[in-house]
Amino acid sequence: MKVYEFDGFPNPARVRIALAEKKMTDQVEFVSINVPEGEHQQAAYLAKNPSGTVPALELDDGTVISECTAITEYLDASSGERALTGTTPKEAAVIHMMQRRAEAGLLDAVGAYFHHATPGLGPDIEGEQCSQWGEMQRHRAEQGMRYFDGVLADQPYIAGEAFSMADITAFAGLAFADFAKVEIPADCEALIAWRARVSKRPSIAG
Amino acid sequence: MKVYEFDGFPNPARVRIALAEKKMTDQVEFVSINVPEGEHQQAAYLAKNPSGTVPALELDDGTVISECTAITEYLDASSGERALTGTTPKEAAVIHMMQRRAEAGLLDAVGAYFHHATPGLGPDIEGEQCSQWGEMQRHRAEQGMRYFDGVLADQPYIAGEAFSMADITAFAGLAFADFAKVEIPADCEALIAWRARVSKRPSIAG
Repeated sequence: MKVYEFDGFPNPARVRIALAEKKMTDQVEFVSINVPEGEHQQAAYLAKNPSGTVPALELDDGTVISECTAITEYLDASSGERALTGTTPKEAAVIHMMQRRAEAGLLDAVGAYFHHATPGLGPDIEGEQCSQWGEMQRHRAEQGMRYFDGVLADQPYIAGEAFSMADITAFAGLAFADFAKVEIPADCEALIAWRARVSKRPSIAG
Repeated sequence: MKVYEFDGFPNPARVRIALAEKKMTDQVEFVSINVPEGEHQQAAYLAKNPSGTVPALELDDGTVISECTAITEYLDASSGERALTGTTPKEAAVIHMMQRRAEAGLLDAVGAYFHHATPGLGPDIEGEQCSQWGEMQRHRAEQGMRYFDGVLADQPYIAGEAFSMADITAFAGLAFADFAKVEIPADCEALIAWRARVSKRPSIAG
């Protein structure tokens, strides 16, 4: 399998962490797509992934899977026991729900701020920007941090008792927030403690 | 189980169709949340679903699942054979990928246009609007229609050979587009033909 990515970017980090959690990193060849130079918007890459996003997973039969949730589902389901996406219908549903909340309310919200209310990756890459939307999404990201702080005051992980795909999304969201200078409110103690704990996992600490 | 929804709205329609496809409609009690009056933003509903969105599925043990993908995963996995979310890891991954593309590139894009570049549900419900963002997302929805038209020129359903959760999302996206007056480009013949075919399914035609 190949993973098309750009090292250090938040969405590729999600798949890097999922692979490491599954001990599958050595089963993958990483192919760098130079996003800051616009390679993800060029025809060769769009032929593989019409969404023009990284990461994307190419299976050995040539099928290309984009979207981190889809990639994580594939990696988790194809390798024996599920470790990131739940083993019962209820676990899976709660993980998918919390993953989507972390994506929409934190990671993608920070991304919208970065790409619309800051210079982002520069005018050649960003195209039309909408600073009002970016600022609205920065506010949403801060609200998302407060929501997850409340969740984590009551349970050890984003989707309950176990680490899951939802934690990976939220962790990547906070990493992107650091990069984009969206600060975690200092009183979000449960969120800050969770982050410190998750940072020590071998899949992240290395 | 209970489904909190508002009849006729696009996201509740996704769960209505999924239930009908699974022949599970009679296992559910529907509870109307008056979104045009703002009931989804009031404390009683937010206590059940902090996202403040409809639909949400309440299980008999009190667990509340929001996000259509999570609800559909639960319904499909909890009722024996999977019919909407794939049976192999690769099928599941492709369905999740295409579902997400239909959500981000069509349904949610139309929603952003409706809620930001039109009066939407009115000033009491909408809060801050961003018309530039709404217009950008209208353009994205039209691009999404063209993308799915290309997909459907090569295969009968959004994620391949079989009807799936991805078709439900795209179908709801086009229904919302009608409501918001975002027209399908007339030359999107494969998309228009797919819609006519899917409209005849018992889960939709009734």
